[in-house]
Amino acid sequence: MSDRPSEFELISRLFVPLATEPGALGLTDDACLLEQKAGCDLVVTTDAMIEGVHFLGSDPADLIAGKALRVNLSDLAAKGATPAGYLLAIAVPRSREYAWLECFARGLSDDQKAFGVSLLGGDTTATPGPLTLSVTALGYVPAGTMIRRSGARSGDGVYVSGTIGDAGAGLALLKGELQAGTDAGFLVGRYRRPTPRLALGQALRGIASAALDVSDGLLADLGHIAEVSKVRITVEADRIPRSEALRRLWVGRDGIVRAATAGDDYEIAFSAPSDPAVLAAGRKAGVPVSRIGRVEAGQGVVLVDGAGQEIPVGRTGFVHF
Amino acid sequence: MSDRPSEFELISRLFVPLATEPGALGLTDDACLLEQKAGCDLVVTTDAMIEGVHFLGSDPADLIAGKALRVNLSDLAAKGATPAGYLLAIAVPRSREYAWLECFARGLSDDQKAFGVSLLGGDTTATPGPLTLSVTALGYVPAGTMIRRSGARSGDGVYVSGTIGDAGAGLALLKGELQAGTDAGFLVGRYRRPTPRLALGQALRGIASAALDVSDGLLADLGHIAEVSKVRITVEADRIPRSEALRRLWVGRDGIVRAATAGDDYEIAFSAPSDPAVLAAGRKAGVPVSRIGRVEAGQGVVLVDGAGQEIPVGRTGFVHF
Repeated sequence: MSDRPSEFELISRLFVPLATEPGALGLTDDACLLEQKAGCDLVVTTDAMIEGVHFLGSDPADLIAGKALRVNLSDLAAKGATPAGYLLAIAVPRSREYAWLECFARGLSDDQKAFGVSLLGGDTTATPGPLTLSVTALGYVPAGTMIRRSGARSGDGVYVSGTIGDAGAGLALLKGELQAGTDAGFLVGRYRRPTPRLALGQALRGIASAALDVSDGLLADLGHIAEVSKVRITVEADRIPRSEALRRLWVGRDGIVRAATAGDDYEIAFSAPSDPAVLAAGRKAGVPVSRIGRVEAGQGVVLVDGAGQEIPVGRTGFVHF
Repeated sequence: MSDRPSEFELISRLFVPLATEPGALGLTDDACLLEQKAGCDLVVTTDAMIEGVHFLGSDPADLIAGKALRVNLSDLAAKGATPAGYLLAIAVPRSREYAWLECFARGLSDDQKAFGVSLLGGDTTATPGPLTLSVTALGYVPAGTMIRRSGARSGDGVYVSGTIGDAGAGLALLKGELQAGTDAGFLVGRYRRPTPRLALGQALRGIASAALDVSDGLLADLGHIAEVSKVRITVEADRIPRSEALRRLWVGRDGIVRAATAGDDYEIAFSAPSDPAVLAAGRKAGVPVSRIGRVEAGQGVVLVDGAGQEIPVGRTGFVHF
């Protein structure tokens, strides 16, 4: 591309300014360097995002960048970790304009500041395929306190932060499958700019018995907890928190099922033995938390109505293959 | 694909057996967990590999997998780090057969064992584009001993391990640009199965003033050291170590220039103030090391002949964009 600088110029103009931590070595080395924090465990996660699969080519570049960072920070949040920084591998189609990349870097910059993290390293290359982003995020927890998926126990309550289904409706709007009038901005924003629940995750250390972030769909993700914890999770349909906007759009029982099986919420779903402790953690973090069900002996996830009758659900969430 | 299991079956069949470290949590969680090592710094690197850019679609799956791991371990090697483990984000075209993925996982398994590392986490997804791999590798160095690119000083010698140019010739053979008879297997092997110089990198801690691994091309990569260290590096063409096979294929001065500008060697290029210490490190690691030049005041990299005359070089190495 005649308008595009070389790889090295690109890195130095767009990405070096994002490498604010000394350990990033100004992105001039083969690797980054992290001093270890005494008394902490390191928590590491990686997630890839591909144009046409995880985001739309028409999504604004700054929001694509922010989302790639946010979904990884969301994984750290669900584990109770405090983020330290991230590495970014970006494969860019040759046809992509420099201005697009500038906007992409601006999105990263804004979200880095918002969440207090630094770019630590990365890899930039051209691809004959779609834009592909891989972010690896690193964070810390006090030793032994990472919240795993495997700790749910019979008798625990099941909870979720925020509201469920907005992002799925936002995606449906972007695809032209829905019309939403004045609610469109809110719903599309929930799809494009998920909020990693970092303060809540940290407040839940020592309180939640198991947690994950909702990316595949609420029921599918609770299914992951049920499977790894070897328990059964029952979710009461009427307790699933939904926004006013979503209630107007996806109505009735079918609407609840759609919300519970839509992906991309990036809320934290978790189990915990103590209601009051959970409510206190939610208040401390300033994030609404709803009790939506319970953990029992058995296996799998079941959605029930007010009378305790099982509501049949088709697929429970997003399937990656 | 009718022959292909779901994402979750795929992960559990192919990748969970690779997650041998307890901190990988059997790949059942959102993140992996690393206990910190007292007195050490953490070294982290990420590299992406894309079909048609970094490897050929016809390359054997096990060797593609191994190369993705090896090039990242090579970065750790050049920093003097002892590898701990890696995360893998893999985007797979839907058309890819399950048998191919099985072979890919076998390649990872073999190389994990060879280099003593565990898969710690990852992300598996489908892509409408070419196969894209992002590996993030983590390692440790005793605190403060990571070998950076920025430490070369005027008066240091410049060195490289092994031989240079074989991988470039191997790639030319695979592309049908060369014929090599009985040497073909060796040269193609050098392209497909680079050897991360882990023992040498560790032996060079406290001895090398600057180091990196040769991926873009010997001269281009030494240019990175020169730039970051703010020095000039002079390389004597006749001292660049080349294999017998390469000498038969790429002859004369032009052959030397081709070797010095070909990529994918994954040898360690470094500077150091003491010849005897370097030779002792090479012996300790069992890796041949050649002195190829010197560090001076100034900037840039220059290739000279036996009479000290500069040899003009076009582009110095692989350009990613």
